[in-house]
Amino acid sequence: MTVLADVGDTIRALRKEVCALHEQLTRYQLVVWTAGNVSARVPGHDLLVIKPSGVAYDDLTPENMVVCDLQGRVVEGEHAPSSDTDAQAYVYREMPHVGGVVHTHSTYAGAWAIRGEPVPCVLTMCADEFGGEIPIGPFAIIGDDSIGRGIVDTLSTSRSPAVIMRNHGVFAIGPTPRKAVAAAVMCEDVARTVHISRQLGEPVPIEQKHVDALFDRYQNVYGQR
Amino acid sequence: MTVLADVGDTIRALRKEVCALHEQLTRYQLVVWTAGNVSARVPGHDLLVIKPSGVAYDDLTPENMVVCDLQGRVVEGEHAPSSDTDAQAYVYREMPHVGGVVHTHSTYAGAWAIRGEPVPCVLTMCADEFGGEIPIGPFAIIGDDSIGRGIVDTLSTSRSPAVIMRNHGVFAIGPTPRKAVAAAVMCEDVARTVHISRQLGEPVPIEQKHVDALFDRYQNVYGQR
Amino acid sequence: MTVLADVGDTIRALRKEVCALHEQLTRYQLVVWTAGNVSARVPGHDLLVIKPSGVAYDDLTPENMVVCDLQGRVVEGEHAPSSDTDAQAYVYREMPHVGGVVHTHSTYAGAWAIRGEPVPCVLTMCADEFGGEIPIGPFAIIGDDSIGRGIVDTLSTSRSPAVIMRNHGVFAIGPTPRKAVAAAVMCEDVARTVHISRQLGEPVPIEQKHVDALFDRYQNVYGQR
Amino acid sequence: MTVLADVGDTIRALRKEVCALHEQLTRYQLVVWTAGNVSARVPGHDLLVIKPSGVAYDDLTPENMVVCDLQGRVVEGEHAPSSDTDAQAYVYREMPHVGGVVHTHSTYAGAWAIRGEPVPCVLTMCADEFGGEIPIGPFAIIGDDSIGRGIVDTLSTSRSPAVIMRNHGVFAIGPTPRKAVAAAVMCEDVARTVHISRQLGEPVPIEQKHVDALFDRYQNVYGQR
Repeated sequence: MTVLADVGDTIRALRKEVCALHEQLTRYQLVVWTAGNVSARVPGHDLLVIKPSGVAYDDLTPENMVVCDLQGRVVEGEHAPSSDTDAQAYVYREMPHVGGVVHTHSTYAGAWAIRGEPVPCVLTMCADEFGGEIPIGPFAIIGDDSIGRGIVDTLSTSRSPAVIMRNHGVFAIGPTPRKAVAAAVMCEDVARTVHISRQLGEPVPIEQKHVDALFDRYQNVYGQR
Repeated sequence: MTVLADVGDTIRALRKEVCALHEQLTRYQLVVWTAGNVSARVPGHDLLVIKPSGVAYDDLTPENMVVCDLQGRVVEGEHAPSSDTDAQAYVYREMPHVGGVVHTHSTYAGAWAIRGEPVPCVLTMCADEFGGEIPIGPFAIIGDDSIGRGIVDTLSTSRSPAVIMRNHGVFAIGPTPRKAVAAAVMCEDVARTVHISRQLGEPVPIEQKHVDALFDRYQNVYGQR
Repeated sequence: MTVLADVGDTIRALRKEVCALHEQLTRYQLVVWTAGNVSARVPGHDLLVIKPSGVAYDDLTPENMVVCDLQGRVVEGEHAPSSDTDAQAYVYREMPHVGGVVHTHSTYAGAWAIRGEPVPCVLTMCADEFGGEIPIGPFAIIGDDSIGRGIVDTLSTSRSPAVIMRNHGVFAIGPTPRKAVAAAVMCEDVARTVHISRQLGEPVPIEQKHVDALFDRYQNVYGQR
Repeated sequence: MTVLADVGDTIRALRKEVCALHEQLTRYQLVVWTAGNVSARVPGHDLLVIKPSGVAYDDLTPENMVVCDLQGRVVEGEHAPSSDTDAQAYVYREMPHVGGVVHTHSTYAGAWAIRGEPVPCVLTMCADEFGGEIPIGPFAIIGDDSIGRGIVDTLSTSRSPAVIMRNHGVFAIGPTPRKAVAAAVMCEDVARTVHISRQLGEPVPIEQKHVDALFDRYQNVYGQR
């Protein structure tokens, strides 16, 4: 297709990266069967690369990833794209700094989703990565813009890169698809640890100034420069 | 055996498929030791292919799968068939649209089984796959038709492809053995997430109209056509 | 050593089998680090084969298994035997039908151990394998016969092949080491499922006559003849 | 670098050992993504070897481990060291018998951390390895000596080789890095088993004299001499 001629190499690389990142979802048991996916924005183009719908993780290849435009229409690929494509396309349209989106139904985040309760920030790891509580998004049904809108509305008023959609599951964003996967992994880890702690009593809170200091340090000092 | 001459290729393929699907049971930790099995109907024949009894998952091969008629009698194979063969044969006799049956004692479904309590439909994934709550079947003891009858009676009055038999475990059905395995995997996933959520409070319900819309969409739009 | 001349082949085979069975303990996450072991009786001799003490599971080989007499003294092997050797030797002395013993600190059984509470028989799998509740043995400290005596006293008055020693962990027995491992695996599975169920309410009991029928069938009909 | 000329072989060996020990953290699921690390003292030198910051476990190699002095300054290596280097350097400075330090955010220990509650010694394995309860350290924020000081202050008044820092995670020490990893593994195992037990009732305590006897035996008799 001529529209893709000038980004062929970028798309080839993103197909490979998006495909490989799904291994992190299975490794950390964030997904079962075919229920969860990763997508990436094609930088500088109104395009995204996403998992095909209903295909098992073992059967994913760079070639069966699907390229869509930001209205969710297939531009390149033999398969139907993930049924979450519309929601993720909405996020890319509305949040230009987002380079990757991940969707999971991970267990402990799902438990908070069912009660519609945000995960309080009572672990240093939560302050580091989420800068506060992990918020709950509205109940929204698949098929129009309401999931996408719920994600964007919630994350626009939070420092958190992950939102737990009510009765549904997690959407995580990042400047890169890899960072979005990291947010999805840590969302489940924090949701699990806080859940388990609360089974036997109330958490000791962390003061807001410490949350702020931890978030600032993790965003600006942690890792390799 | 002459009875099998005209379905030799079909049976060879089903032996391979049924054997391979057991890997999904161990991967998702739905079974321990030898406690769980998959079977497939031989389409157009009153026959099924099932796991041998008490054989470890590592030792399963296409060759040691057992072919039985729908009264549970061995037609081809060196091994005794699963002790659940009678129950599964009953399902194939009574439910002609069923192409595969799976039995597990998966942990969280087992927890609901012990209390004899259905899993309420409070997750979109549950609405998608089960179209409502995951029902409880009666207590039934092995050795006659009572398990098979309990499965059929329960699933005939439900949209769910899985039933949790009281004090026992899960039986899941599908138009194909692979779809039955998917139902068993998601049954445990939903049972786990809802259980964990309820440890800390009551679920927010999903309105019936949303359950219906999600079920309809998942059955008719999701996946590859 | 001359005492071993006539059983050299048997011991070689048992070293291999005992070593390999430890893979089942790690696969089912019944043990961490070096905390758990399998032993086998050398049939017709007052000897047993057991794991060396404090050696990591990855480093086990048939050659570093240790042969001891039934007083727990090393007869063949370069390593110190498991610190549970005395307890297991006691079991082999007092229970001539036992061919294998397994010790674990598996998590959910350990949770019942801490409360000193037997696991009630509310799952068909528990009736099948244990013929009733999984009993609690006394608190006993390592270093003399008290652990061995606690195991034998408890299992002599039960149909169960596994005992949960108070504040400690599981000892499982079987006519073969493989059957003892199966009992240890199912002990944890049953302890886990019943624990989880009770978090949200009381179990529905299984009538004694059903427990008896299930136990009888599993011992006499299940598996390959 | 001339300062390292006489310890080149030692450091090469420690890079390999420290790198390899991280596999134990992932195997026992004590860490997710990049959140946890192992370090080793270079015996006889004011140096330590530690994981690079923010590098995935799959990407660790002996070569990308970082050598620092005991003020936490990089002495050899291309990468920025773990953000926990300052805390661990403090431990090596103040506790000369420590040869290895491990940091994790393991789940169940984290649950106790959030409530700021020590893990009571109600399992023989806890008496063996920790000689009593697993203590809680103070809340301390990263960036100065306060984490290191909290670790040292807590462990100096305890027989335990592991401390659970409030709202944060585990630091474990040992005479060797391998023993520190063992302590981190057993800390999570004990924290998990005791947590689960307490969900359904109160633990039966172990008498202090038995705790002392078990600790003494495990330190002096267990394993290979």
